[in-house]
Amino acid sequence: MQSKTVSDLLNQDILLQEVEVKGWVRTFRANRFIALNDGSTINNIQCVVDFENFDEGLLKRVTTGAAIHIKGDLVESQGKGQTVEIQVKQLDVLGDSDVETYPIQPKKHSFEFLRENAHLRTRTNTFSAVMRLRSALSFAIHKYFNENGFYYMHAPIITGSDAEGAGEMFQVTNLNIENTPKTEDGKVDYSQDFFGKETNLTVSGQLEAETYAMSLGKVYTFGPTFRAENSNTSRHLAEFWMIEPEVAFMDLAGNMDLAEDFMKSVINYVLVNNKEDLEFLDKRLEDEDKKKPQAERSPMGLIEKLNFVTENNFKRVSYTEAIDILRNSKPNKKKKFKYLIDEWGADLQSEHERFLVEKHFKCPVILFDYPANIKAFYMRLNDDGKTVRAMDILFPGIGEIVGGAQREERLEVLKEKMAAIDIPEEDLWWYLDLRKFGTAVHSGFGLGFERLVMFATGMSNIRDVIPFPRTPQNAEF
Amino acid sequence: MQSKTVSDLLNQDILLQEVEVKGWVRTFRANRFIALNDGSTINNIQCVVDFENFDEGLLKRVTTGAAIHIKGDLVESQGKGQTVEIQVKQLDVLGDSDVETYPIQPKKHSFEFLRENAHLRTRTNTFSAVMRLRSALSFAIHKYFNENGFYYMHAPIITGSDAEGAGEMFQVTNLNIENTPKTEDGKVDYSQDFFGKETNLTVSGQLEAETYAMSLGKVYTFGPTFRAENSNTSRHLAEFWMIEPEVAFMDLAGNMDLAEDFMKSVINYVLVNNKEDLEFLDKRLEDEDKKKPQAERSPMGLIEKLNFVTENNFKRVSYTEAIDILRNSKPNKKKKFKYLIDEWGADLQSEHERFLVEKHFKCPVILFDYPANIKAFYMRLNDDGKTVRAMDILFPGIGEIVGGAQREERLEVLKEKMAAIDIPEEDLWWYLDLRKFGTAVHSGFGLGFERLVMFATGMSNIRDVIPFPRTPQNAEF
Repeated sequence: MQSKTVSDLLNQDILLQEVEVKGWVRTFRANRFIALNDGSTINNIQCVVDFENFDEGLLKRVTTGAAIHIKGDLVESQGKGQTVEIQVKQLDVLGDSDVETYPIQPKKHSFEFLRENAHLRTRTNTFSAVMRLRSALSFAIHKYFNENGFYYMHAPIITGSDAEGAGEMFQVTNLNIENTPKTEDGKVDYSQDFFGKETNLTVSGQLEAETYAMSLGKVYTFGPTFRAENSNTSRHLAEFWMIEPEVAFMDLAGNMDLAEDFMKSVINYVLVNNKEDLEFLDKRLEDEDKKKPQAERSPMGLIEKLNFVTENNFKRVSYTEAIDILRNSKPNKKKKFKYLIDEWGADLQSEHERFLVEKHFKCPVILFDYPANIKAFYMRLNDDGKTVRAMDILFPGIGEIVGGAQREERLEVLKEKMAAIDIPEEDLWWYLDLRKFGTAVHSGFGLGFERLVMFATGMSNIRDVIPFPRTPQNAEF
Repeated sequence: MQSKTVSDLLNQDILLQEVEVKGWVRTFRANRFIALNDGSTINNIQCVVDFENFDEGLLKRVTTGAAIHIKGDLVESQGKGQTVEIQVKQLDVLGDSDVETYPIQPKKHSFEFLRENAHLRTRTNTFSAVMRLRSALSFAIHKYFNENGFYYMHAPIITGSDAEGAGEMFQVTNLNIENTPKTEDGKVDYSQDFFGKETNLTVSGQLEAETYAMSLGKVYTFGPTFRAENSNTSRHLAEFWMIEPEVAFMDLAGNMDLAEDFMKSVINYVLVNNKEDLEFLDKRLEDEDKKKPQAERSPMGLIEKLNFVTENNFKRVSYTEAIDILRNSKPNKKKKFKYLIDEWGADLQSEHERFLVEKHFKCPVILFDYPANIKAFYMRLNDDGKTVRAMDILFPGIGEIVGGAQREERLEVLKEKMAAIDIPEEDLWWYLDLRKFGTAVHSGFGLGFERLVMFATGMSNIRDVIPFPRTPQNAEF
């Protein structure tokens, strides 16, 4: 007889059969009811032990966290809360779990405590649900792009080009930094480093993805990216995963269509495939919110928020229109915004983005045509000479979740923009080549994967949606 | 009218309709036949220009590499080599490509030259086919695991633990290494580094994956890993992608079943979905082989080799049996092996692995129960005290492609093995925790993704199967 998963057993139609299952004890109640979980679902299967027929010493070892092997009959449950249960015939303890020292007891642990035990935290309901959703979202992303003719492309992680300038970078080296080799003028001699030059961890795969879009047509990256910013907040990680599609012959309008369709599709996937985990997390968020003052509560329930994205058209609004709306808004006039909106050119904060989505338009919003000087050099300059074909997608509760643009495809304009911020042409010779040989309109966007997982799970700290978070002063495990 | 992809048009049933397509010129023959490609397929669509009706200056700009926009009628082709073609009504050049300077001319370029132009090399048939296959293999991997109840897990890239000792590591730092801060005793003061300690790029996500297997049951990683080995060969990269599944309650036999089923499924996926690219690469390999002396030729054609894997059962052979076979083999007796097999305990080389697969068993082979001292510390010690439950899968033409093991689940045995190679327990406290709390039999394996892509594409240099290879003295792009 082959072991089944808890998920299989709970979805089994055939009753009264002999079954076999392995998993970890969540609780053991009244010396009779074992709640067993194996990670295959958020639900436990109840295993009913007739304690008179089992050795007392054996039953004492059935503690929270112990790995056990159960054989028995799958029967209709007499109790409430489950439809089936296992009438245990045979029980083996595979691995004990000492009650005194096991960190994950059947009680509420703080997320801080669980972060220190990140190797065990997926043994809780919340973190197992979060990580199953993270996995499902990953798959939904690959599935969407595969079905839509995109090729997955692995952008390099170690890079010698730091031209994007998207923040501070981590250096990668195999020199002995206790005693680096030196050149004649006393500098570090990078010719002796592994790659023969200074290298860093990538901050984005976009520029490399563009090279592939300009030959394979539609591509996307999904890989780790890095920022050495000393930001100890609930929204920053030093190591995080990014999704960056890039499409040849697609303009900004096409980019907005793609991004909207993509976000809806991915979120719809988990609504359909991860119902139980979402229901659990929805309830968790509701319970958490009850303890908070009204102002700090989530604007919507978790599932409600996901439906809000899949069921509404994303409203497309130019930056200029948005500034007008914000300038004349109540919170701006009553000075309720932390950053007041005075004039065109201001960078929008999360509070403004959320106002537009949650209060003004009451639907997801795509802002486009941003001022050139608050956006990156590679974005397509509009004919007005002051705005670029950038777009940001704004979601409830979070603000910006996607940022994208049509890229500058004109060689001379791109060169001018690079010169203006002192990027030497020789640093990006290959990027310029794309504009020299068969250039064409093309566009893409970036999505921080952990922002999406936060959105889809209702978790409020980014450290709780990645297995082993990397933050200032922390690279444990 | 919406633009279609070349792939859509070539698979179109409806003829005589107005169509629109954008892509890059591969060749322009007799001032009449444009071979247009957009990356959606290895095949070009023939666009027939009635040159009398077009401006001569415009037609002069239709050069290899130029991006063009075509409108016309899709008609049955009169010529050979294609079933449909476009009768061009309108032609626009979106981006020129100067014949004198464009590096990718319609002729055979050396792979060395193309590596120096890695940003343009997917504009060739060979590299577009390779990268489409790379993408398809990635998707097949995610699909397989998703359909089989596995969760995708992102193992950390930056790690403070260097316990696996799988080779030299790259250091990650944000200290200014021109002038590092020092402690009182003159060492680098890592308390001032970003993570407050020395950190490296990961060499494997396995140990972290084990933590997730021991809670979520079935998991896999698929992410970049790094080795700072100064190996300038056609088989080594400093940055490469690894797939590492890990399953709770699974023993070595289950691990072999999983690995065999997985490899067959993934390869079958591309046989079904990437027929045209494979046929092209099969032909390419055949042509290459014709130029080589018999001894250096591939043992099988590309598609033949893929079928060899999907159609044969993998023969399971213990290391001990394999050593006997090799010791008594002709090439060993006639001293044809570079490394002669004298005694039990020898590490097998690619020549031995290939002999077993190609000459002796004539099917893929899984070797298991290797000597403990040539395998990693975390592998399950057998009762004989000298072998471990390791397994390697051997493929034709390449030798080892998968390496895996049942893991040592017994706390005391694991501690002894760590002590024997001086890994301090405090370095792996969290890994030991898995054996303290609810330990259980579990197993997994590792597959170097680029090895798989080489196998499935017939490419012989690993630098040609990853977009931007990282090797000693090279981190361009």
